[in-house]
Amino acid sequence: MKNIKTGVVDSKAIGQRIRADIEKNLEIRGKRGYLPGIAIVRVGRDPASEFYFNAKIKRAKEFGIEVIATTLEEDAREKEVLECLKELSNDSTVHGILLESPVPGHLDYKKLVNTIPFQKDIDGATDISLGRLMSGEETLVAATPLAVMEFLGEISLESGSLVSIINRTITVGKPLTMLLLNANYTPVVCHSRTKNLKEICRRSDAIVVAAGRPRFLGPEYVNNNSVVVDVGINSENGKIVGDADFESLKGIVKTITPVPGGVGSITSLIIFKNLLQAQELQEKF
Amino acid sequence: MKNIKTGVVDSKAIGQRIRADIEKNLEIRGKRGYLPGIAIVRVGRDPASEFYFNAKIKRAKEFGIEVIATTLEEDAREKEVLECLKELSNDSTVHGILLESPVPGHLDYKKLVNTIPFQKDIDGATDISLGRLMSGEETLVAATPLAVMEFLGEISLESGSLVSIINRTITVGKPLTMLLLNANYTPVVCHSRTKNLKEICRRSDAIVVAAGRPRFLGPEYVNNNSVVVDVGINSENGKIVGDADFESLKGIVKTITPVPGGVGSITSLIIFKNLLQAQELQEKF
Repeated sequence: MKNIKTGVVDSKAIGQRIRADIEKNLEIRGKRGYLPGIAIVRVGRDPASEFYFNAKIKRAKEFGIEVIATTLEEDAREKEVLECLKELSNDSTVHGILLESPVPGHLDYKKLVNTIPFQKDIDGATDISLGRLMSGEETLVAATPLAVMEFLGEISLESGSLVSIINRTITVGKPLTMLLLNANYTPVVCHSRTKNLKEICRRSDAIVVAAGRPRFLGPEYVNNNSVVVDVGINSENGKIVGDADFESLKGIVKTITPVPGGVGSITSLIIFKNLLQAQELQEKF
Repeated sequence: MKNIKTGVVDSKAIGQRIRADIEKNLEIRGKRGYLPGIAIVRVGRDPASEFYFNAKIKRAKEFGIEVIATTLEEDAREKEVLECLKELSNDSTVHGILLESPVPGHLDYKKLVNTIPFQKDIDGATDISLGRLMSGEETLVAATPLAVMEFLGEISLESGSLVSIINRTITVGKPLTMLLLNANYTPVVCHSRTKNLKEICRRSDAIVVAAGRPRFLGPEYVNNNSVVVDVGINSENGKIVGDADFESLKGIVKTITPVPGGVGSITSLIIFKNLLQAQELQEKF
Protein backbone atom coordinates (compact mmCIF):
# COMPACT_ATOMS: atom_id res chain seq x y z
CA MET A 1 0.00 0.00 0.00
CA LYS A 2 1.25 3.37 -1.04
CA ASN A 3 0.72 6.80 0.40
CA ILE A 4 -0.56 5.70 3.77
CA LYS A 5 1.01 7.26 6.85
CA THR A 6 -0.17 6.29 10.33
CA GLY A 7 -3.53 5.18 8.98
CA VAL A 8 -4.40 8.40 7.18
CA VAL A 9 -4.53 8.35 3.38
CA ASP A 10 -2.26 10.96 1.83
CA SER A 11 -4.84 12.59 -0.39
CA LYS A 12 -2.36 15.28 -1.41
CA ALA A 13 -0.38 12.65 -3.27
CA ILE A 14 -3.53 11.37 -4.99
CA GLY A 15 -4.50 14.89 -5.97
CA GLN A 16 -1.03 15.61 -7.30
CA ARG A 17 -1.06 12.45 -9.37
CA ILE A 18 -4.48 13.24 -10.89
CA ARG A 19 -3.46 16.83 -11.54
CA ALA A 20 -0.21 15.73 -13.20
CA ASP A 21 -2.16 13.29 -15.41
CA ILE A 22 -4.56 16.03 -16.47
CA GLU A 23 -1.74 18.49 -17.20
CA LYS A 24 0.21 15.93 -19.21
CA ASN A 25 -2.88 15.09 -21.24
CA LEU A 26 -3.71 18.74 -21.82
CA GLU A 27 -0.16 19.38 -22.99
CA ILE A 28 -0.41 16.60 -25.57
CA ARG A 29 -3.82 17.79 -26.76
CA GLY A 30 -2.65 21.40 -26.80
CA LYS A 31 0.22 20.50 -29.11
CA ARG A 32 -2.21 18.79 -31.46
CA GLY A 33 -4.43 21.85 -31.34
CA TYR A 34 -7.50 20.36 -29.72
CA LEU A 35 -7.78 21.50 -26.13
CA PRO A 36 -11.19 20.76 -24.60
CA GLY A 37 -13.62 23.49 -23.60
CA ILE A 38 -16.01 23.47 -20.63
CA ALA A 39 -19.35 25.19 -20.07
CA ILE A 40 -20.79 25.85 -16.62
CA VAL A 41 -24.42 26.94 -16.37
CA ARG A 42 -26.23 28.12 -13.28
CA VAL A 43 -29.71 29.47 -12.81
CA GLY A 44 -29.88 32.09 -10.07
CA ARG A 45 -27.16 32.69 -7.54
CA ASP A 46 -27.61 30.04 -4.86
CA PRO A 47 -25.16 31.22 -2.19
CA ALA A 48 -24.19 27.66 -1.15
CA SER A 49 -23.03 26.81 -4.66
CA GLU A 50 -21.45 30.20 -5.44
CA PHE A 51 -18.11 29.01 -4.02
CA TYR A 52 -18.06 25.85 -6.15
CA PHE A 53 -19.18 27.70 -9.28
CA ASN A 54 -16.31 30.16 -8.96
CA ALA A 55 -13.80 27.49 -7.93
CA LYS A 56 -14.49 25.50 -11.10
CA ILE A 57 -14.02 28.57 -13.31
CA LYS A 58 -10.77 29.41 -11.51
CA ARG A 59 -9.44 25.88 -11.83
CA ALA A 60 -10.34 25.67 -15.53
CA LYS A 61 -8.39 28.87 -16.11
CA GLU A 62 -5.42 27.47 -14.17
CA PHE A 63 -5.44 24.48 -16.52
CA GLY A 64 -5.59 26.85 -19.50
CA ILE A 65 -9.01 25.51 -20.49
CA GLU A 66 -11.57 27.67 -22.27
CA VAL A 67 -14.62 28.27 -20.02
CA ILE A 68 -18.08 29.49 -20.96
CA ALA A 69 -19.68 30.42 -17.63
CA THR A 70 -23.34 31.38 -17.85
CA THR A 71 -25.53 32.72 -15.06
CA LEU A 72 -29.21 32.82 -15.97
CA GLU A 73 -31.62 34.88 -13.90
CA GLU A 74 -33.35 33.28 -10.91
CA ASP A 75 -36.71 33.58 -12.71
CA ALA A 76 -35.48 32.23 -16.07
CA ARG A 77 -38.17 30.28 -17.90
CA GLU A 78 -37.65 26.61 -18.70
CA LYS A 79 -37.49 27.39 -22.41
CA GLU A 80 -34.64 29.80 -21.87
CA VAL A 81 -32.55 27.28 -19.91
CA LEU A 82 -33.28 24.52 -22.44
CA GLU A 83 -32.17 26.78 -25.29
CA CYS A 84 -28.96 27.66 -23.49
CA LEU A 85 -28.18 23.97 -22.87
CA LYS A 86 -29.04 23.01 -26.44
CA GLU A 87 -26.79 25.70 -27.84
CA LEU A 88 -23.89 24.45 -25.73
CA SER A 89 -24.68 20.86 -26.70
CA ASN A 90 -24.34 21.80 -30.37
CA ASP A 91 -21.19 23.89 -29.84
CA SER A 92 -18.22 21.83 -31.04
CA THR A 93 -15.79 23.90 -28.93
CA VAL A 94 -17.63 22.79 -25.76
CA HIS A 95 -16.72 19.26 -24.65
CA GLY A 96 -18.25 19.21 -21.19
CA ILE A 97 -21.37 20.86 -19.76
CA LEU A 98 -22.17 21.31 -16.07
CA LEU A 99 -25.63 22.41 -14.96
CA GLU A 100 -25.25 23.55 -11.36
CA SER A 101 -27.78 22.20 -8.90
CA PRO A 102 -30.03 23.11 -7.26
CA VAL A 103 -32.07 24.99 -9.83
CA PRO A 104 -34.90 27.31 -8.68
CA GLY A 105 -38.10 25.54 -7.63
CA HIS A 106 -40.10 26.36 -10.78
CA LEU A 107 -37.63 24.34 -12.89
CA ASP A 108 -37.22 20.55 -13.24
CA TYR A 109 -33.48 19.79 -12.90
CA LYS A 110 -33.80 16.31 -14.36
CA LYS A 111 -35.67 17.49 -17.44
CA LEU A 112 -33.10 20.22 -18.04
CA VAL A 113 -30.02 18.06 -17.52
CA ASN A 114 -31.38 15.32 -19.79
CA THR A 115 -30.98 17.64 -22.79
CA ILE A 116 -27.18 17.35 -22.41
CA PRO A 117 -25.81 14.55 -24.65
CA PHE A 118 -24.15 11.81 -22.59
CA GLN A 119 -20.83 12.50 -24.33
CA LYS A 120 -20.76 16.00 -22.74
CA ASP A 121 -22.40 15.10 -19.42
CA ILE A 122 -19.33 15.49 -17.17
CA ASP A 123 -21.52 15.34 -14.04
CA GLY A 124 -22.82 11.90 -15.08
CA ALA A 125 -26.30 13.19 -14.28
CA THR A 126 -28.38 12.29 -17.33
CA ASP A 127 -30.55 9.19 -17.53
CA ILE A 128 -28.51 7.88 -20.44
CA SER A 129 -25.23 8.27 -18.53
CA LEU A 130 -26.74 6.45 -15.55
CA GLY A 131 -28.14 3.69 -17.76
CA ARG A 132 -24.80 3.26 -19.50
CA LEU A 133 -23.04 3.09 -16.13
CA MET A 134 -25.47 0.40 -14.99
CA SER A 135 -24.92 -1.53 -18.24
CA GLY A 136 -21.16 -1.34 -17.79
CA GLU A 137 -20.70 0.76 -20.95
CA GLU A 138 -18.05 3.47 -21.23
CA THR A 139 -19.56 6.66 -19.86
CA LEU A 140 -19.10 9.72 -17.65
CA VAL A 141 -19.79 9.34 -13.94
CA ALA A 142 -20.42 11.80 -11.10
CA ALA A 143 -17.23 13.14 -9.52
CA THR A 144 -17.80 12.08 -5.90
CA PRO A 145 -18.14 8.32 -6.50
CA LEU A 146 -15.16 8.48 -8.87
CA ALA A 147 -13.15 10.23 -6.15
CA VAL A 148 -14.06 7.43 -3.71
CA MET A 149 -12.81 4.88 -6.25
CA GLU A 150 -9.50 6.76 -6.52
CA PHE A 151 -9.02 6.31 -2.76
CA LEU A 152 -9.94 2.62 -2.80
CA GLY A 153 -7.55 2.12 -5.72
CA GLU A 154 -4.79 4.00 -3.94
CA ILE A 155 -4.98 1.77 -0.88
CA SER A 156 -5.34 -1.33 -3.11
CA LEU A 157 -8.47 -2.61 -1.39
CA GLU A 158 -8.67 -6.32 -2.13
CA SER A 159 -11.01 -7.55 -4.87
CA GLY A 160 -14.30 -8.95 -3.57
CA SER A 161 -14.17 -6.89 -0.34
CA LEU A 162 -17.40 -5.93 1.37
CA VAL A 163 -17.91 -2.16 1.11
CA SER A 164 -20.67 -0.47 3.10
CA ILE A 165 -21.99 2.73 1.58
CA ILE A 166 -24.02 4.95 3.89
CA ASN A 167 -25.84 6.89 1.19
CA ARG A 168 -28.38 5.96 -1.48
CA THR A 169 -28.56 9.15 -3.54
CA ILE A 170 -28.22 9.44 -7.30
CA THR A 171 -25.02 11.48 -6.96
CA VAL A 172 -23.17 9.24 -4.50
CA GLY A 173 -24.55 5.89 -3.32
CA LYS A 174 -26.22 4.57 -6.45
CA PRO A 175 -23.46 5.32 -8.99
CA LEU A 176 -20.84 4.22 -6.45
CA THR A 177 -22.64 0.87 -6.16
CA MET A 178 -22.22 0.38 -9.90
CA LEU A 179 -18.55 1.43 -9.88
CA LEU A 180 -17.84 -0.94 -6.99
CA LEU A 181 -19.50 -3.82 -8.84
CA ASN A 182 -17.58 -3.05 -12.02
CA ALA A 183 -14.39 -3.19 -9.92
CA ASN A 184 -15.39 -6.56 -8.38
CA TYR A 185 -16.14 -5.26 -4.89
CA THR A 186 -19.25 -6.31 -2.94
CA PRO A 187 -21.35 -3.24 -2.13
CA VAL A 188 -23.97 -3.02 0.60
CA VAL A 189 -26.11 0.09 0.27
CA CYS A 190 -27.22 1.46 3.63
CA HIS A 191 -29.50 4.34 4.57
CA SER A 192 -31.61 5.77 7.37
CA ARG A 193 -33.94 2.75 7.37
CA THR A 194 -31.21 0.10 7.46
CA LYS A 195 -31.48 -2.31 10.38
CA ASN A 196 -28.30 -3.06 12.39
CA LEU A 197 -26.23 -0.45 10.57
CA LYS A 198 -23.43 -0.57 13.14
CA GLU A 199 -23.07 -4.31 12.82
CA ILE A 200 -23.12 -4.18 9.01
CA CYS A 201 -20.39 -1.53 9.01
CA ARG A 202 -18.32 -3.36 11.64
CA ARG A 203 -18.32 -6.49 9.50
CA SER A 204 -17.36 -4.60 6.31
CA ASP A 205 -13.86 -4.24 4.92
CA ALA A 206 -14.49 -0.63 3.97
CA ILE A 207 -17.09 2.00 4.87
CA VAL A 208 -17.96 4.95 2.65
CA VAL A 209 -19.86 7.43 4.76
CA ALA A 210 -21.98 10.23 3.26
CA ALA A 211 -24.69 10.47 5.88
CA GLY A 212 -24.76 14.26 5.96
CA ARG A 213 -24.32 14.26 9.74
CA PRO A 214 -21.14 15.66 11.36
CA ARG A 215 -18.95 13.03 13.08
CA PHE A 216 -21.75 10.45 12.69
CA LEU A 217 -19.45 7.44 12.23
CA GLY A 218 -17.87 6.60 15.59
CA PRO A 219 -15.78 3.70 16.93
CA GLU A 220 -18.86 1.45 17.30
CA TYR A 221 -19.08 1.25 13.47
CA VAL A 222 -15.56 0.01 12.76
CA ASN A 223 -13.04 -2.75 13.37
CA ASN A 224 -9.24 -2.61 13.48
CA ASN A 225 -9.03 -3.44 9.79
CA SER A 226 -11.63 -0.95 8.59
CA VAL A 227 -10.98 1.38 5.71
CA VAL A 228 -13.04 4.55 6.19
CA VAL A 229 -13.70 6.88 3.25
CA ASP A 230 -15.37 10.06 4.46
CA VAL A 231 -17.44 11.90 1.86
CA GLY A 232 -19.08 14.28 4.37
CA ILE A 233 -18.51 18.02 4.38
CA ASN A 234 -20.23 19.71 7.32
CA SER A 235 -19.71 23.10 8.89
CA GLU A 236 -19.57 22.91 12.71
CA ASN A 237 -18.79 26.03 14.73
CA GLY A 238 -17.05 27.54 11.72
CA LYS A 239 -14.92 24.44 11.16
CA ILE A 240 -15.27 21.92 8.32
CA VAL A 241 -15.78 18.39 9.67
CA GLY A 242 -16.61 15.09 8.00
CA ASP A 243 -19.25 12.44 8.66
CA ALA A 244 -16.65 10.29 10.41
CA ASP A 245 -15.36 11.12 13.87
CA PHE A 246 -11.79 11.45 12.61
CA GLU A 247 -10.12 12.05 15.97
CA SER A 248 -11.55 8.97 17.64
CA LEU A 249 -11.16 6.73 14.56
CA LYS A 250 -7.71 7.54 13.22
CA GLY A 251 -5.88 5.50 15.87
CA ILE A 252 -8.07 2.39 15.67
CA VAL A 253 -8.91 1.79 11.99
CA LYS A 254 -6.53 0.62 9.28
CA THR A 255 -7.04 3.69 7.11
CA ILE A 256 -9.16 6.83 7.11
CA THR A 257 -9.48 9.78 4.74
CA PRO A 258 -9.37 13.22 6.39
CA VAL A 259 -11.90 16.06 6.09
CA PRO A 260 -11.05 18.65 4.89
CA GLY A 261 -8.39 17.53 2.43
CA GLY A 262 -9.73 14.07 1.57
CA VAL A 263 -12.34 13.03 -0.99
CA GLY A 264 -13.63 16.60 -1.36
CA SER A 265 -10.19 17.87 -2.27
CA ILE A 266 -9.96 15.68 -5.35
CA THR A 267 -13.60 15.84 -6.46
CA SER A 268 -13.05 19.19 -8.17
CA LEU A 269 -10.11 17.71 -10.09
CA ILE A 270 -12.17 14.74 -11.27
CA ILE A 271 -14.44 17.13 -13.20
CA PHE A 272 -11.46 17.89 -15.45
CA LYS A 273 -10.49 14.26 -15.75
CA ASN A 274 -14.09 13.75 -16.90
CA LEU A 275 -13.71 16.60 -19.38
CA LEU A 276 -10.78 14.80 -21.01
CA GLN A 277 -12.78 11.59 -21.14
CA ALA A 278 -15.74 13.51 -22.61
CA GLN A 279 -13.57 14.73 -25.44
CA GLU A 280 -12.53 11.13 -26.16
CA LEU A 281 -16.16 9.94 -26.05
CA GLN A 282 -17.07 12.60 -28.61
CA GLU A 283 -14.48 11.18 -30.97
CA LYS A 284 -15.88 7.66 -30.52
CA PHE A 285 -19.65 8.20 -30.50
CA MET B 1 -47.88 -13.00 6.60
CA LYS B 2 -50.21 -14.34 3.97
CA ASN B 3 -49.96 -17.31 1.68
CA ILE B 4 -47.15 -19.09 3.47
CA LYS B 5 -47.62 -22.76 4.23
CA THR B 6 -44.93 -24.72 6.03
CA GLY B 7 -42.23 -22.31 4.91
CA VAL B 8 -42.95 -22.45 1.20
CA VAL B 9 -44.39 -19.37 -0.49
CA ASP B 10 -47.64 -20.11 -2.30
CA SER B 11 -46.65 -18.65 -5.65
CA LYS B 12 -49.87 -19.89 -7.23
CA ALA B 13 -51.79 -17.41 -5.11
CA ILE B 14 -49.43 -14.59 -6.13
CA GLY B 15 -49.79 -15.54 -9.78
CA GLN B 16 -53.57 -15.68 -9.49
CA ARG B 17 -53.67 -12.25 -7.88
CA ILE B 18 -51.48 -10.70 -10.60
CA ARG B 19 -53.49 -12.41 -13.33
CA ALA B 20 -56.76 -11.22 -11.84
CA ASP B 21 -55.40 -7.66 -11.65
CA ILE B 22 -54.37 -7.79 -15.30
CA GLU B 23 -57.72 -9.21 -16.41
CA LYS B 24 -59.66 -6.62 -14.44
CA ASN B 25 -57.58 -3.84 -15.93
CA LEU B 26 -57.96 -5.22 -19.45
CA GLU B 27 -61.69 -5.45 -19.01
CA ILE B 28 -61.92 -1.79 -18.03
CA ARG B 29 -59.68 -0.72 -20.89
CA GLY B 30 -61.55 -2.96 -23.32
CA LYS B 31 -64.82 -1.27 -22.40
CA ARG B 32 -63.26 2.12 -23.08
CA GLY B 33 -61.97 0.82 -26.40
CA TYR B 34 -58.25 1.06 -25.78
CA LEU B 35 -56.78 -2.37 -25.23
CA PRO B 36 -52.99 -2.41 -25.37
CA GLY B 37 -51.04 -4.17 -28.12
CA ILE B 38 -47.73 -5.97 -27.79
CA ALA B 39 -44.94 -6.61 -30.33
CA ILE B 40 -42.40 -9.40 -29.95
CA VAL B 41 -39.35 -9.37 -32.20
CA ARG B 42 -36.75 -12.08 -32.53
CA VAL B 43 -33.80 -12.42 -34.86
CA GLY B 44 -33.11 -16.01 -35.81
CA ARG B 45 -34.59 -19.02 -34.06
CA ASP B 46 -32.47 -19.54 -30.93
CA PRO B 47 -33.82 -22.91 -29.68
CA ALA B 48 -33.40 -21.97 -26.00
CA SER B 49 -35.68 -18.95 -26.36
CA GLU B 50 -38.16 -20.59 -28.76
CA PHE B 51 -40.25 -21.82 -25.82
CA TYR B 52 -40.43 -18.37 -24.19
CA PHE B 53 -41.19 -16.66 -27.50
CA ASN B 54 -44.14 -18.94 -28.14
CA ALA B 55 -45.31 -18.83 -24.52
CA LYS B 56 -45.55 -15.04 -24.62
CA ILE B 57 -47.58 -15.10 -27.82
CA LYS B 58 -49.89 -17.74 -26.37
CA ARG B 59 -50.38 -15.83 -23.14
CA ALA B 60 -51.09 -12.57 -24.98
CA LYS B 61 -53.78 -14.34 -26.97
CA GLU B 62 -55.26 -15.79 -23.78
CA PHE B 63 -55.55 -12.24 -22.43
CA GLY B 64 -57.18 -11.15 -25.68
CA ILE B 65 -54.29 -8.82 -26.45
CA GLU B 66 -53.27 -8.01 -30.02
CA VAL B 67 -49.79 -9.45 -30.78
CA ILE B 68 -47.42 -8.61 -33.60
CA ALA B 69 -44.85 -11.41 -33.55
CA THR B 70 -41.94 -10.93 -35.94
CA THR B 71 -39.16 -13.39 -36.69
CA LEU B 72 -36.32 -11.88 -38.71
CA GLU B 73 -33.80 -14.12 -40.45
CA GLU B 74 -30.68 -15.22 -38.55
CA ASP B 75 -28.53 -13.17 -40.98
CA ALA B 76 -30.70 -10.01 -40.86
CA ARG B 77 -28.65 -6.85 -41.23
CA GLU B 78 -28.58 -4.28 -38.42
CA LYS B 79 -30.42 -1.80 -40.62
CA GLU B 80 -33.28 -4.23 -41.12
CA VAL B 81 -33.73 -4.86 -37.39
CA LEU B 82 -33.50 -1.15 -36.60
CA GLU B 83 -36.18 -0.40 -39.19
CA CYS B 84 -38.47 -3.06 -37.77
CA LEU B 85 -38.05 -1.67 -34.24
CA LYS B 86 -38.56 1.92 -35.38
CA GLU B 87 -41.73 1.01 -37.22
CA LEU B 88 -43.12 -0.65 -34.09
CA SER B 89 -41.99 2.32 -31.98
CA ASN B 90 -44.02 4.63 -34.19
CA ASP B 91 -47.05 2.33 -34.31
CA SER B 92 -49.70 3.75 -31.98
CA THR B 93 -51.44 0.36 -31.69
CA VAL B 94 -48.27 -1.14 -30.18
CA HIS B 95 -47.79 -0.26 -26.50
CA GLY B 96 -45.00 -2.62 -25.58
CA ILE B 97 -42.05 -3.98 -27.57
CA LEU B 98 -39.91 -6.98 -26.64
CA LEU B 99 -36.66 -7.68 -28.46
CA GLU B 100 -35.76 -11.28 -27.66
CA SER B 101 -32.19 -11.90 -26.54
CA PRO B 102 -29.73 -13.21 -27.46
CA VAL B 103 -29.45 -11.74 -30.96
CA PRO B 104 -27.02 -13.33 -33.47
CA GLY B 105 -23.35 -12.41 -32.92
CA HIS B 106 -23.10 -9.91 -35.77
CA LEU B 107 -25.68 -7.66 -34.07
CA ASP B 108 -25.32 -5.36 -31.03
CA TYR B 109 -28.29 -6.07 -28.74
CA LYS B 110 -27.80 -2.88 -26.72
CA LYS B 111 -27.71 -0.66 -29.78
CA LEU B 112 -30.85 -2.30 -31.16
CA VAL B 113 -32.84 -2.21 -27.94
CA ASN B 114 -31.96 1.44 -27.32
CA THR B 115 -34.10 2.44 -30.30
CA ILE B 116 -37.21 1.43 -28.34
CA PRO B 117 -38.72 4.44 -26.52
CA PHE B 118 -38.69 3.97 -22.74
CA GLN B 119 -42.47 4.20 -22.68
CA LYS B 120 -42.70 0.97 -24.75
CA ASP B 121 -39.66 -0.78 -23.25
CA ILE B 122 -41.51 -3.50 -21.30
CA ASP B 123 -38.27 -5.41 -20.73
CA GLY B 124 -36.75 -2.37 -18.97
CA ALA B 125 -33.65 -2.94 -21.09
CA THR B 126 -32.88 0.47 -22.57
CA ASP B 127 -30.33 2.87 -21.08
CA ILE B 128 -33.04 5.45 -20.47
CA SER B 129 -35.23 2.94 -18.59
CA LEU B 130 -32.24 1.94 -16.46
CA GLY B 131 -31.29 5.56 -15.80
CA ARG B 132 -34.85 6.43 -14.85
CA LEU B 133 -34.98 3.43 -12.51
CA MET B 134 -31.74 4.58 -10.86
CA SER B 135 -33.14 8.11 -10.53
CA GLY B 136 -36.30 6.79 -8.92
CA GLU B 137 -38.49 8.04 -11.78
CA GLU B 138 -41.57 6.15 -12.97
CA THR B 139 -40.42 3.63 -15.55
CA LEU B 140 -40.60 0.04 -16.82
CA VAL B 141 -38.36 -2.55 -15.17
CA ALA B 142 -37.20 -6.05 -16.15
CA ALA B 143 -39.66 -8.80 -15.20
CA THR B 144 -37.42 -10.96 -13.01
CA PRO B 145 -36.50 -8.30 -10.42
CA LEU B 146 -40.14 -7.20 -10.35
CA ALA B 147 -41.19 -10.81 -9.72
CA VAL B 148 -38.75 -10.99 -6.80
CA MET B 149 -40.30 -7.82 -5.36
CA GLU B 150 -43.76 -9.43 -5.60
CA PHE B 151 -42.52 -12.27 -3.40
CA LEU B 152 -40.87 -9.98 -0.85
CA GLY B 153 -44.06 -7.92 -0.73
CA GLU B 154 -46.19 -11.03 -0.33
CA ILE B 155 -44.25 -12.19 2.72
CA SER B 156 -44.14 -8.60 4.07
CA LEU B 157 -40.38 -8.54 4.53
CA GLU B 158 -39.66 -5.84 7.09
CA SER B 159 -38.46 -2.42 5.90
CA GLY B 160 -34.69 -1.93 6.22
CA SER B 161 -33.94 -5.69 6.05
CA LEU B 162 -30.60 -6.84 4.69
CA VAL B 163 -31.14 -8.61 1.35
CA SER B 164 -28.26 -10.50 -0.27
CA ILE B 165 -28.48 -10.78 -4.04
CA ILE B 166 -26.25 -13.39 -5.64
CA ASN B 167 -26.20 -11.88 -9.14
CA ARG B 168 -24.88 -8.64 -10.60
CA THR B 169 -26.31 -8.73 -14.12
CA ILE B 170 -28.22 -5.97 -15.84
CA THR B 171 -31.37 -8.12 -16.01
CA VAL B 172 -31.46 -9.26 -12.37
CA GLY B 173 -28.97 -8.02 -9.76
CA LYS B 174 -28.51 -4.40 -10.75
CA PRO B 175 -32.15 -3.43 -11.33
CA LEU B 176 -33.17 -5.44 -8.26
CA THR B 177 -30.69 -3.40 -6.20
CA MET B 178 -32.50 -0.23 -7.27
CA LEU B 179 -35.96 -1.68 -6.59
CA LEU B 180 -34.85 -2.84 -3.13
CA LEU B 181 -33.48 0.63 -2.32
CA ASN B 182 -36.68 2.29 -3.52
CA ALA B 183 -38.59 -0.05 -1.18
CA ASN B 184 -36.28 0.82 1.78
CA TYR B 185 -34.47 -2.51 1.95
CA THR B 186 -30.69 -2.76 2.34
CA PRO B 187 -29.22 -4.64 -0.64
CA VAL B 188 -25.82 -6.33 -0.71
CA VAL B 189 -24.79 -7.31 -4.22
CA CYS B 190 -22.74 -10.50 -4.30
CA HIS B 191 -20.99 -12.31 -7.15
CA SER B 192 -18.31 -14.86 -7.94
CA ARG B 193 -15.57 -12.63 -6.49
CA THR B 194 -17.34 -11.88 -3.20
CA LYS B 195 -15.31 -12.80 -0.11
CA ASN B 196 -17.11 -14.71 2.67
CA LEU B 197 -20.29 -15.20 0.66
CA LYS B 198 -21.65 -17.83 3.04
CA GLU B 199 -21.24 -15.55 6.04
CA ILE B 200 -22.80 -12.59 4.24
CA CYS B 201 -25.82 -14.71 3.27
CA ARG B 202 -26.12 -16.27 6.73
CA ARG B 203 -26.31 -12.80 8.30
CA SER B 204 -28.89 -11.54 5.81
CA ASP B 205 -32.64 -11.43 6.36
CA ALA B 206 -33.30 -12.53 2.79
CA ILE B 207 -31.26 -14.12 0.01
CA VAL B 208 -32.10 -13.78 -3.67
CA VAL B 209 -30.12 -16.41 -5.54
CA ALA B 210 -29.53 -16.29 -9.28
CA ALA B 211 -26.12 -17.89 -9.45
CA GLY B 212 -26.89 -20.04 -12.47
CA ARG B 213 -25.73 -23.17 -10.65
CA PRO B 214 -28.17 -25.97 -9.74
CA ARG B 215 -28.75 -26.39 -5.97
CA PHE B 216 -25.86 -23.99 -5.24
CA LEU B 217 -27.39 -22.49 -2.09
CA GLY B 218 -27.20 -25.05 0.70
CA PRO B 219 -27.78 -24.99 4.47
CA GLU B 220 -24.42 -23.33 5.14
CA TYR B 221 -25.77 -20.10 3.54
CA VAL B 222 -28.87 -19.67 5.68
CA ASN B 223 -30.20 -19.21 9.19
CA ASN B 224 -33.54 -20.24 10.70
CA ASN B 225 -35.05 -16.88 9.85
CA SER B 226 -33.83 -16.71 6.27
CA VAL B 227 -36.15 -15.86 3.42
CA VAL B 228 -34.86 -17.53 0.23
CA VAL B 229 -36.04 -16.33 -3.18
CA ASP B 230 -34.81 -18.68 -5.90
CA VAL B 231 -34.48 -17.16 -9.36
CA GLY B 232 -32.55 -20.10 -10.83
CA ILE B 233 -33.90 -22.32 -13.58
CA ASN B 234 -31.58 -25.24 -14.36
CA SER B 235 -32.15 -28.49 -16.15
CA GLU B 236 -30.68 -31.45 -14.26
CA ASN B 237 -31.24 -34.98 -15.55
CA GLY B 238 -34.34 -33.81 -17.33
CA LYS B 239 -35.75 -32.14 -14.23
CA ILE B 240 -36.03 -28.38 -13.63
CA VAL B 241 -34.22 -27.38 -10.42
CA GLY B 242 -33.42 -24.01 -8.88
CA ASP B 243 -30.20 -22.46 -7.56
CA ALA B 244 -31.28 -23.25 -3.99
CA ASP B 245 -31.17 -26.77 -2.61
CA PHE B 246 -34.90 -26.78 -1.95
CA GLU B 247 -35.12 -30.18 -0.26
CA SER B 248 -32.45 -29.46 2.34
CA LEU B 249 -33.55 -25.84 2.94
CA LYS B 250 -37.34 -26.04 3.15
CA GLY B 251 -37.34 -27.42 6.68
CA ILE B 252 -34.80 -25.03 8.17
CA VAL B 253 -35.46 -21.57 6.70
CA LYS B 254 -38.40 -19.29 7.42
CA THR B 255 -39.56 -19.14 3.81
CA ILE B 256 -38.43 -20.41 0.44
CA THR B 257 -39.80 -20.10 -3.09
CA PRO B 258 -40.02 -23.36 -5.07
CA VAL B 259 -38.57 -24.14 -8.52
CA PRO B 260 -40.41 -24.81 -10.76
CA GLY B 261 -43.50 -22.80 -9.85
CA GLY B 262 -41.88 -19.91 -8.01
CA VAL B 263 -40.41 -16.68 -9.36
CA GLY B 264 -40.26 -18.05 -12.90
CA SER B 265 -43.95 -18.85 -12.89
CA ILE B 266 -44.93 -15.21 -12.40
CA THR B 267 -42.21 -13.56 -14.52
CA SER B 268 -44.17 -14.20 -17.71
CA LEU B 269 -47.22 -12.53 -16.15
CA ILE B 270 -45.20 -9.46 -15.14
CA ILE B 271 -44.56 -8.74 -18.83
CA PHE B 272 -48.29 -8.05 -19.20
CA LYS B 273 -48.42 -6.00 -16.03
CA ASN B 274 -45.63 -3.96 -17.62
CA LEU B 275 -47.64 -3.66 -20.82
CA LEU B 276 -50.49 -2.04 -18.89
CA GLN B 277 -48.03 0.32 -17.20
CA ALA B 278 -46.48 1.09 -20.60
CA GLN B 279 -49.85 2.18 -21.92
CA GLU B 280 -50.22 4.53 -18.94
CA LEU B 281 -46.72 5.95 -19.45
CA GLN B 282 -47.60 6.70 -23.06
CA GLU B 283 -50.52 8.78 -21.88
CA LYS B 284 -48.29 10.73 -19.48
CA PHE B 285 -45.08 11.27 -21.45
